[in-house]
Amino acid sequence: MNLEKNILGRLVPTEINGEKAVPFQGVGKYKPEGRRYAHKITSNRDYPSDGNKQVASLKEALIKSGLKDGMTISSHHHFRNGDLIMNQVFDIAKELGVKGLRWFPSASFPCHEHLIQYLEDGTISHIEGSMNGALGRYTSEGKMSKMAVLRSHGGRYQAVQDGEVEIDIAIIGAGTADPFGNANGLYGDSASGLLGFALADSEYADKVIVVTDNMVPFPCVPWQIQGNNVDFTVKVDKVGEPEKIVSGTTQITKSPDRLLLAEMTAKFCDVTGLIKEGFSFQTGAGGTSLAVSDYFSKIMKEKNIKARFARGGSNKYLVRMLEEGQIDYILDGQTFDLDGVRSMAENPRHTWTSPFTSYNYHSKGNFADLVDIVILGATEVDVNFNANVVTHSDGYLLHGIGGWQNCLFSKTVILPIPLFRDRIPVIMDEVTTICGPGELIDVIVTERGIAINPLRKDLIEAVKGSGLPIKTIQELKDEAEAICGVPDKPVLGDKIVAAIKWVDGTVIDCVREVKK
Amino acid sequence: MNLEKNILGRLVPTEINGEKAVPFQGVGKYKPEGRRYAHKITSNRDYPSDGNKQVASLKEALIKSGLKDGMTISSHHHFRNGDLIMNQVFDIAKELGVKGLRWFPSASFPCHEHLIQYLEDGTISHIEGSMNGALGRYTSEGKMSKMAVLRSHGGRYQAVQDGEVEIDIAIIGAGTADPFGNANGLYGDSASGLLGFALADSEYADKVIVVTDNMVPFPCVPWQIQGNNVDFTVKVDKVGEPEKIVSGTTQITKSPDRLLLAEMTAKFCDVTGLIKEGFSFQTGAGGTSLAVSDYFSKIMKEKNIKARFARGGSNKYLVRMLEEGQIDYILDGQTFDLDGVRSMAENPRHTWTSPFTSYNYHSKGNFADLVDIVILGATEVDVNFNANVVTHSDGYLLHGIGGWQNCLFSKTVILPIPLFRDRIPVIMDEVTTICGPGELIDVIVTERGIAINPLRKDLIEAVKGSGLPIKTIQELKDEAEAICGVPDKPVLGDKIVAAIKWVDGTVIDCVREVKK
Repeated sequence: MNLEKNILGRLVPTEINGEKAVPFQGVGKYKPEGRRYAHKITSNRDYPSDGNKQVASLKEALIKSGLKDGMTISSHHHFRNGDLIMNQVFDIAKELGVKGLRWFPSASFPCHEHLIQYLEDGTISHIEGSMNGALGRYTSEGKMSKMAVLRSHGGRYQAVQDGEVEIDIAIIGAGTADPFGNANGLYGDSASGLLGFALADSEYADKVIVVTDNMVPFPCVPWQIQGNNVDFTVKVDKVGEPEKIVSGTTQITKSPDRLLLAEMTAKFCDVTGLIKEGFSFQTGAGGTSLAVSDYFSKIMKEKNIKARFARGGSNKYLVRMLEEGQIDYILDGQTFDLDGVRSMAENPRHTWTSPFTSYNYHSKGNFADLVDIVILGATEVDVNFNANVVTHSDGYLLHGIGGWQNCLFSKTVILPIPLFRDRIPVIMDEVTTICGPGELIDVIVTERGIAINPLRKDLIEAVKGSGLPIKTIQELKDEAEAICGVPDKPVLGDKIVAAIKWVDGTVIDCVREVKK
Repeated sequence: MNLEKNILGRLVPTEINGEKAVPFQGVGKYKPEGRRYAHKITSNRDYPSDGNKQVASLKEALIKSGLKDGMTISSHHHFRNGDLIMNQVFDIAKELGVKGLRWFPSASFPCHEHLIQYLEDGTISHIEGSMNGALGRYTSEGKMSKMAVLRSHGGRYQAVQDGEVEIDIAIIGAGTADPFGNANGLYGDSASGLLGFALADSEYADKVIVVTDNMVPFPCVPWQIQGNNVDFTVKVDKVGEPEKIVSGTTQITKSPDRLLLAEMTAKFCDVTGLIKEGFSFQTGAGGTSLAVSDYFSKIMKEKNIKARFARGGSNKYLVRMLEEGQIDYILDGQTFDLDGVRSMAENPRHTWTSPFTSYNYHSKGNFADLVDIVILGATEVDVNFNANVVTHSDGYLLHGIGGWQNCLFSKTVILPIPLFRDRIPVIMDEVTTICGPGELIDVIVTERGIAINPLRKDLIEAVKGSGLPIKTIQELKDEAEAICGVPDKPVLGDKIVAAIKWVDGTVIDCVREVKK
């Protein structure tokens, strides 16, 4: 396998599973050429004249879609760990004796551990998509026969749009749908809020199958997925396990350490003037992030400041801010709790977005660019502010990229992270895997100090006299190592088990096999 | 010019302005090949990082879009006869000395008579799109240097999607927009309800310019046009003349003849069982059509029947039915009055659609297929039920096709038309121009009798014993001729001034020069 050093000095493959790959060239440096993927021209003559595309079973839909060896099957992860569809899809493929499928989910979850048997027996050749849990571990141990490819939400849209990944059959599980194929995630037992992660699939896949347990008469309104892109619809008893799709309620962290991180983050945003009339923010739905939202809310109330918009993942804290008039709009990519789903269904100011509107880099701009403050996590950060979100310090690939890379294009990117986890420092000379280049990461907030990227002279100026514990990132690293010692490097083999794509489709890094 | 007889026996050109054209082969017979048009891959690196795409003037936007000789400039007609943008666009083209532009509007109106000077001096080479009024007359007299091409709303989407028409610059006037390019027609002084006729343009044009007189801070919600497809935004003083965009209020016809037609139509739908629980209909917004809606409403009330959906053009009568719970949903393509605009802005059951969802034939089905009853007009009908909507009996091309062809795919198509207009019979042996094949037209309702297409044996059966004045279409023709005499044929030259496309891009007929 040919490897080449990319601009960040990482050795990356120039070919992935037989196709040419371009090493990362720097932010905004790679200029794409050519044209987007063009769908075959279809004709209504080949579809039922009464608009009823419903077939009796998932198996029938797969057979009618022409399922065969070597195809690419895509799916979305709005059902998260409650998905009941994709295991069935590959059970059917196995039953039909189909081999060598590429699974292209927007993310996979522990519930998909069931599929390891199909990676073993060749039904599935490999997975391109985030792998949380057992599938990540399986991949890390070098057991998958081809290379995994991880992309951000926007990168996945870009890859499909640009024809980098051609989807043969897209499976779209939906809370509600009609027989024509219009679908949404707003209603039904398996409501997931929205279905945006399946948008590219619906637009570009050769065949599209919508599966629901709540089939309503045409029209299913709103149509987050447009039936005009759908080939077959299927009604099943149950598409998902509701309690694993969205939380009943999300909770702010109770950990004093994390609350401290959140408070410092909010204070930083306040003293630097980032929280101002008409500003915008995206915090996410982890316990720390929720706490940041809550601190923002307090500061905004005190100062009588209103935000123009917040980007979701939505949750009850954001919804409360929307309902109390502290935010004009929530632009939401996924709902994390029942308040999020309810609000999206009933409030036109709680607007659903998609990886196309928010994150696609091969577009004419996207919403992520317009966000003033974004709060993100990381497993590791290096002294050049490069950060990792996919592997742990033991080398295991256990997380997806999600919208993380895409959000780095926001105006100010802040990572509130503990200085160490389980006595392993989080700041180091070199991260295990670079997922985001340091030039886009502005601030690291730790419980023992805040490091500002030297590129952000404006922020360095703005904190002067604030009393905030500003340190260099090197100082933070030294402090962590003084307490915990220098961490061991993970023991990795030569085999590349996964490529990490940047938002423009170039390869920013790769993940190597873990040697136990 | 090579001509070929199509399946309806009409001589049509096999080449239009230098490009190959396929003669109509019959409904559902033409199988398209190849792939949809693929947009150049763009990158956010080439767009402002703060999302602000606003430039100082329409002229600057056109120059930055690279306006040059021979380009295709597209526009939508949601502003109808109140459009103030497109005349300016071509004034600028003239000023810049650009020549040979193809104008590709979804429709043009009398307000665009201003452009005849540019057809004369070569700034504009020709128009592809509906031409209402002076431009139609100009074209009919053989004065346009190239052939016009008329398409239905769905056919226009199909032509753009399939790359039959490549748009260089799309101009999208909008009631409201943000600097990123998100736009809608719901708010602002020039609210037009929706912007669906510009959807294909926004998705497929090389450069997209959004022009508004109501620029709001990001985000403009909802985004009927997605800013991610937009290159430049412009704020002007005034995009349109509100009173010419939507009526203050639409009115049911007061003509006793037309009221009779409407009543007979409604009665026909009632006695044939077409009006039934959960049915759907599309009536349009002409005076007769409004009266049909109103009669439907009365019948539905009497029988306690609810419709699942009505397709717009919306108007106060449909809105009232929606608000009173007689209809579950309005699926709207354009709003014809202020009640329509208001309802669409405030009622989630008043849903906006587009030529993609409703009318595109090169899709995987569309909404028009799913409508039970559609009420349409026609200028002429022949004894085989073939109908004309674009030319008058004097041969002049004075109307566009609109959604008319697309609506023919609905389950029952009814044309309530007077048996003669100005003492010229409307039913004849051969229409001036065939826009829709008779096999799709089910019923002709005239004040002197109702003709049912022999293909619809079910309807012929259903009216038995109803007392309705059922006649053959030949009988209706004979009756008209007995009163008015056999009409003269228009005097036409050999020159083909316009091609009429069918929904699949084939040529169903053409329009010849009128000799005065």
